[in-house]
Amino acid sequence: MLHYAQSISILIAELGKLPGVGPKTAQRLAFYLLSVEDNEAIALADAIIDAKNNITFCSICCNLTDEDPCFICDDPRRDSTTICVVEDPKDLVAIEKTGEYRGYYHVLHGVISPINGIGPEQLTFKELLRRVNSSKFEEVIVAIGSSVEGEATGMYLAKLLQPLGIKVTRIAHGLPVGGDLEYADEVTLARAFEGRREFN
Amino acid sequence: MLHYAQSISILIAELGKLPGVGPKTAQRLAFYLLSVEDNEAIALADAIIDAKNNITFCSICCNLTDEDPCFICDDPRRDSTTICVVEDPKDLVAIEKTGEYRGYYHVLHGVISPINGIGPEQLTFKELLRRVNSSKFEEVIVAIGSSVEGEATGMYLAKLLQPLGIKVTRIAHGLPVGGDLEYADEVTLARAFEGRREFN
Repeated sequence: MLHYAQSISILIAELGKLPGVGPKTAQRLAFYLLSVEDNEAIALADAIIDAKNNITFCSICCNLTDEDPCFICDDPRRDSTTICVVEDPKDLVAIEKTGEYRGYYHVLHGVISPINGIGPEQLTFKELLRRVNSSKFEEVIVAIGSSVEGEATGMYLAKLLQPLGIKVTRIAHGLPVGGDLEYADEVTLARAFEGRREFN
Repeated sequence: MLHYAQSISILIAELGKLPGVGPKTAQRLAFYLLSVEDNEAIALADAIIDAKNNITFCSICCNLTDEDPCFICDDPRRDSTTICVVEDPKDLVAIEKTGEYRGYYHVLHGVISPINGIGPEQLTFKELLRRVNSSKFEEVIVAIGSSVEGEATGMYLAKLLQPLGIKVTRIAHGLPVGGDLEYADEVTLARAFEGRREFN
């Protein structure tokens, strides 16, 4: 049964493919886009097209970038002794937003997951190994979530890099700041105990 | 502080202008669009551009359409004695989806709201009046929500059309189907009493 003009149906269908956007939301977004000024809606379309045309992978850290090398790899003021390995570009952004880390990054674009057919060769370990071999990095910080796949990826990194004399560390797991002890799950709490530190 | 390549920042900003899309969701949608195949993301951009280029207002009912007259006004099998007046195109779609109504429509594109500076002349009453005068419509069904503005718009329609010998009705307000009496608000419940009907 046809309820919309064809261009509207297509727009709703395309918006409905976005993650977390159901049919009702897609309809609302479509009618919103139809209601705003032409240039406002076209700006979104252009932003999508530009991003798809301009964004590639940085040849050094494999992050998404519109210039190669990316603005992080291109920044000489960063700490050249550490690389932080993350699963995807969103994680890099989250770490950058803390303002705490001043080293370089490496984006794996996934984690080792045999059940999904993702082995080390599908990820960017080769590029990481090349960087570690050609520069004077001393520490690789693994900032990957603690799922089974994340843990396996961390172990793989340690086995790969420790023989090269690189210190491989991972970020602490524990109670979130402001988190209530009684609501923490057992695994997180166990990790928090494991990672306890002396007051100083 | 710069966390993204520029094209990504722009894409996130544009996505963030959509209703109900906050910064986190905008970021997630942007990275989703960057992760899918080029043609999939471009299809969304094209759908936006096509919709903005093709969609105009039907010269008869003022609904959004890509051909004039729209597919509803162009359908001779519809009941030519009734017009259903709605506030916006979304409402028309909601009514069409019930499959219960087989007459024509008229889209006002708003309701009378002096507080927002919207008077009858900003809406499509003129077009409605022309239709009513030039065709053999017998009934105008007001299918507008029961806000103060909605009520005022309904009253205005009644005053406008009743002198022309048109029956002006409004859809029933009452308890939603499946709705629990104890959770209904007083006004809805009062309306449900007011609109009670005999079993038959």
